[in-house]
Amino acid sequence: MATTFDYALSTEGTRLERSVLRELLHYAVDPEIISLAGGLPAGECLPLQGLRECLDTVLTRDGFRALQYSPQHPPLRARIAELMEARGVSCTPEQVFITNGNQQGLAILSRLFLDPGDPAVIEEVTFTGIQQVTVGRGAEVRTVPTDLDLGVDVDAVEAAFRREPRPRLLVLVTDFHNPLGVSIAAESRERLARLAAEHRVPLVEDDPYGSLRFTGDPLPPVKAYDDEGMVFYLGSFSKMLAPALRLGWMVAPVELMPRITTLRESLDLESTTLYQRAVAEFLGQGRVEGHLAALRTTHGARCDAMLEALGEHLSGVARWSRPEGGMFVWVELPADLDATELFQAAIAKKVAYVPGGFFSVHGGKRNTMRLNFSNVDPEAIREGVARLAGVVREALAPHPVPPHPPGGNSR
Amino acid sequence: MATTFDYALSTEGTRLERSVLRELLHYAVDPEIISLAGGLPAGECLPLQGLRECLDTVLTRDGFRALQYSPQHPPLRARIAELMEARGVSCTPEQVFITNGNQQGLAILSRLFLDPGDPAVIEEVTFTGIQQVTVGRGAEVRTVPTDLDLGVDVDAVEAAFRREPRPRLLVLVTDFHNPLGVSIAAESRERLARLAAEHRVPLVEDDPYGSLRFTGDPLPPVKAYDDEGMVFYLGSFSKMLAPALRLGWMVAPVELMPRITTLRESLDLESTTLYQRAVAEFLGQGRVEGHLAALRTTHGARCDAMLEALGEHLSGVARWSRPEGGMFVWVELPADLDATELFQAAIAKKVAYVPGGFFSVHGGKRNTMRLNFSNVDPEAIREGVARLAGVVREALAPHPVPPHPPGGNSR
Repeated sequence: MATTFDYALSTEGTRLERSVLRELLHYAVDPEIISLAGGLPAGECLPLQGLRECLDTVLTRDGFRALQYSPQHPPLRARIAELMEARGVSCTPEQVFITNGNQQGLAILSRLFLDPGDPAVIEEVTFTGIQQVTVGRGAEVRTVPTDLDLGVDVDAVEAAFRREPRPRLLVLVTDFHNPLGVSIAAESRERLARLAAEHRVPLVEDDPYGSLRFTGDPLPPVKAYDDEGMVFYLGSFSKMLAPALRLGWMVAPVELMPRITTLRESLDLESTTLYQRAVAEFLGQGRVEGHLAALRTTHGARCDAMLEALGEHLSGVARWSRPEGGMFVWVELPADLDATELFQAAIAKKVAYVPGGFFSVHGGKRNTMRLNFSNVDPEAIREGVARLAGVVREALAPHPVPPHPPGGNSR
Repeated sequence: MATTFDYALSTEGTRLERSVLRELLHYAVDPEIISLAGGLPAGECLPLQGLRECLDTVLTRDGFRALQYSPQHPPLRARIAELMEARGVSCTPEQVFITNGNQQGLAILSRLFLDPGDPAVIEEVTFTGIQQVTVGRGAEVRTVPTDLDLGVDVDAVEAAFRREPRPRLLVLVTDFHNPLGVSIAAESRERLARLAAEHRVPLVEDDPYGSLRFTGDPLPPVKAYDDEGMVFYLGSFSKMLAPALRLGWMVAPVELMPRITTLRESLDLESTTLYQRAVAEFLGQGRVEGHLAALRTTHGARCDAMLEALGEHLSGVARWSRPEGGMFVWVELPADLDATELFQAAIAKKVAYVPGGFFSVHGGKRNTMRLNFSNVDPEAIREGVARLAGVVREALAPHPVPPHPPGGNSR
């Protein structure tokens, strides 16, 4: 991707690449394509009316103040502290820092703790945004495997912590991992918090999906076991309420807040006070539980549809994760298939997915796919998986011997 | 500001300081204090009703789509390109990149072009946000002086460009400089664009106030003279419409957009589609000119009130800039006065300002103050300047000889 500006770019600027993933997803805009490639919550469940009413309430009540610059909105910090308490995390409003979604939390914490070249521990297969703030910033990345049933391999984390030089950061996705769909096992959570404290490695717990559980028992986040302030929890309203709010939060020690505030100011000053006030209103009116219940029901039914369709069409051919929440199922195809190569064939059959290789830090996992169920209706999910299975089975079929070429024209 | 986490911080994390400015401004919340310390547009001029109607229109028309993830909103990019054309900048929608305000533009461009240790040229007195993304990131900063009538000293810029190693970035505020209130002279603009092209130094033109001119003839931005794509223009809706929108834009070469997009995604993914759509609607309905006319009238009257009050109370004692737009007047007190030391006396007299030293890259300019006129009504401005003059005159008065201490008790 050479440009006439290459001579002017920084080391980081040079390392930036165009997003092949973003370009692939452009194929998915054809309305005939069933896209299992997205990462959006169920559109029709978004609390359109509720947020609209809360925006109205705030604009009427607060007037011009809702449109000015404004620091972190204290009532929202208080409501978020309540949400955290409900999840088993002891938390004061002063420990809550409002961000523009979890990606901004990742950007802030990676800059607070990581210099280029510093060792960081991340999962071998993980959300691209986590790769951007570690690999992309020039960290020396140590990867740990993640089991499709048990989540991150904590023995591997401990081994990575014991290697010198000591890692400066560990980043994990807690619940309903993107892209794997798995959650960290109950018995691993306390141990992870203890390891972070013992080895003094800041643990960034990225948990955008934690409130999207549709089956199974809720588990406390790793942060619930953190006695030493070494776990930095990132939560988000993007999936819980609406992506367009661009609001999330960080739970961090009060003594780091001045630095976190200054760092965030250098990035984009602050989050919009109008949305902060509207979300505080939404939470204060007790609207969130009803909304989440509807969202969970819808997502759960869609996940069921996907797991059933996978069972029907790809049993014995592929294996996949069985999420209890979130938005994604991870599918492993036979080792000799390449999901990036199959992508064009899938598009031809009018179905899209994300090739799993994009989530692989070291570029492997080419036989995998991430499938989204949250923003596709069950019928389309069944049809989409059927089409996908057709593509896979065709790729697995022994290649037919090409017919004998027609003889030359004898004339 | 030692914390128990110091051992874990990155180089940048260690360099971060708590904001003494932010703490000073906490004093200004007392409702009896007349604060000339702010940086907000006139509150009562914010287009509350217009934005509310546009938000309603979008939520009704676009429904759930207005609450989902969404890329840069094409109609908003097109409207912004029209705004740029109206200011004399030839610009296509594809050259417009929507940001969360100019600070995010600064954060992106400084990371795209600057490595720690690289030389960067900034004004000796400049907006703290520009210092954060250059000095704060460890750049080797070369400062250039800015004249209160003519703006940045272009000879000094050229001299800084000629020094080896070649600077990697120049950042200037175009119109109604924060904190100086001055604009870059007409005759300097074309020369700056030419120097950037000739020396191949990316010039970041930070122009949040350009549309807030209340007197004098509008000048084209430096970008209007840029034939080589070396000028990166940053514009903002924060002052033009409302700070809480957190929306601004960058004009940059199309060939850099993939890198800019990837870098921005690593920071916070994207800007909220609801506000993007609402602002596109606001601009499309032709509401902006009427709004700006009202804003300019109000700001102009307030600036007049401030300049008159300064003339009345501080003639012969201080000198100050005479802005033709924007929000700030810069005041230079006699050289032996320290505006930071006077701050507590001013608070005692119920008036606040920002000591100019905070805007000085090398820590000088302690005899200066930044005064805001945009969000204070004229009567309060007159009273505030009178109080401030009282503080200054008291500090200048020869210190009274302390009375002879009372004799000891003879008993």
